[in-house]
Amino acid sequence: MNMYRDVSAATRVTTIGAGPIGGGWAAHFLARGYDVTAHIHDMAERDALMAVIDTAWTSLAALGLERGASRDRLTVTSDLKEAAQGAEFIQESAPERLDLKQALYATLGEIAPENVVIASSTSGLTMTEIAADCATPARCVIGHPFNPPYLLPLVEIVGGERTASEAVAWAAAFYETAGKAPLVMKKEVPGFVATRLQEALWREALHMVANGEATPEDIDIALKNGPAPRMAVQGQCMAFHVACGEGGMATNLDQFGPALKWPWTRLEAPELTQELRDRMVEGCDAMARGRHFTDMAAERDRRIVAVLNALRDTA
Amino acid sequence: MNMYRDVSAATRVTTIGAGPIGGGWAAHFLARGYDVTAHIHDMAERDALMAVIDTAWTSLAALGLERGASRDRLTVTSDLKEAAQGAEFIQESAPERLDLKQALYATLGEIAPENVVIASSTSGLTMTEIAADCATPARCVIGHPFNPPYLLPLVEIVGGERTASEAVAWAAAFYETAGKAPLVMKKEVPGFVATRLQEALWREALHMVANGEATPEDIDIALKNGPAPRMAVQGQCMAFHVACGEGGMATNLDQFGPALKWPWTRLEAPELTQELRDRMVEGCDAMARGRHFTDMAAERDRRIVAVLNALRDTA
Repeated sequence: MNMYRDVSAATRVTTIGAGPIGGGWAAHFLARGYDVTAHIHDMAERDALMAVIDTAWTSLAALGLERGASRDRLTVTSDLKEAAQGAEFIQESAPERLDLKQALYATLGEIAPENVVIASSTSGLTMTEIAADCATPARCVIGHPFNPPYLLPLVEIVGGERTASEAVAWAAAFYETAGKAPLVMKKEVPGFVATRLQEALWREALHMVANGEATPEDIDIALKNGPAPRMAVQGQCMAFHVACGEGGMATNLDQFGPALKWPWTRLEAPELTQELRDRMVEGCDAMARGRHFTDMAAERDRRIVAVLNALRDTA
Repeated sequence: MNMYRDVSAATRVTTIGAGPIGGGWAAHFLARGYDVTAHIHDMAERDALMAVIDTAWTSLAALGLERGASRDRLTVTSDLKEAAQGAEFIQESAPERLDLKQALYATLGEIAPENVVIASSTSGLTMTEIAADCATPARCVIGHPFNPPYLLPLVEIVGGERTASEAVAWAAAFYETAGKAPLVMKKEVPGFVATRLQEALWREALHMVANGEATPEDIDIALKNGPAPRMAVQGQCMAFHVACGEGGMATNLDQFGPALKWPWTRLEAPELTQELRDRMVEGCDAMARGRHFTDMAAERDRRIVAVLNALRDTA
């Protein structure tokens, strides 16, 4: 039994927050053809919100608007009750303060229809904490975007201890319908997936600058001209899988496993157990879906060329 | 005094190695209009080399060939003396075995004209080690590409203890002339810059898979739809600098400095000293060259849109 409406029947989204994240979400949903009610704390924030939306619109138009999408379908209000009651989905991007979010979810939990999923953009708090005082926590999830939220497709989704799995599944399906790339997390883990990976890289970068091994400019030159264009096409697991030819990820781990002990970063690798090896290999095999590595390498190259040409043409 | 010829006067490149790196380099230099002599250990490897070059050529043509560039300007030989004597630059991509490379550099040191810079593609060895038995180590440098070497522009350059700084500078200038993005390293450090950053991310990914926090597919979905397209445009330092608005990197470090203590990755951050803070801020200010963050954000968005459209159009 699922109390939530069909995701494709949801046409009215309420966003909460006038900052770059809240405004970015409002712009995204408008561009995808939704009616959007943007709740802001104070109508004095309206100009700031509109500036975020107008800036985002330039890019959203260049990516391609949904038929019927229009900024005229935006309503801005400081009346939370009005904003919540008409919503078929709520994306909350209030300031990152636990007390503030807890009070907000206590209120939203009462005034928003119980079959409406509420998603928080928080990057540092858990839904277990945020929904502590909420009377209807089952429909509350994290829906964490990546900055800029109107451009990058990723949304990381995870519930709290009292969240219903149906709400998590609904949010994932809804975000996908709304043109995002949802990633349902296996566990509540600080930093989710993308930020954890980025943060490991960032801390290594700070170590390198602290030790005089690289400058900030060196870091950025290295990333832009090396790993990043490939990572945009393949991620990192498939990059290694395809680079290792016939043997794929198995060869990568069996052959370069010892390199995990080398001081190629200050982060110690986990023990390369048989179980970890198998998970990596099976995960990559599943992604490869039987394609031969030469086909995947050709596709990689074709797409990296397109990314490099796009970077050059906009330089 | 500089004994090396002008970089723009160098028109004949010798590559050593028949594998994906050696072949990738040969293809790159051919595409940039150089005469290339490819040395392979055994003429039986010729077909493998040509297959690498032909595969690379498809992408290089799509990126745009230099006027006059042609695969007809390739000579393949197993005669090392002949290959070395006609060279104006040597890119060595022999197998990653120290004994083998040391013997090779002992020979090259004798037979290659002393004003010819020799660069090694090694990813795991230092030039101090490689050139241990070389009679002319001053012109020997590391010139480390990123896979695939015919596509990704990055080349990390660093000398060994006996390398002349002129040779490092010459290699950087030559790679730039030859269409690469050179990065001269401050120190010999294992993994150079790009691989260290990537390796920190990779080890965090392995930890997440080992702990059941994410699957390989989750890792790749997160990277492709989140950090990577932005990192391809801005790197990581400028991504944070621009995202923090007026305050830039200073705001990032002053406001989010405490987050460096949070368990957002298993890699501990360095102490955020005043000196590290200043290096990061000054480095980003230098890269910004006085541009306002709104202009840089608009440029970021325009370029991310181009990258996302390129990814979509080639999906």
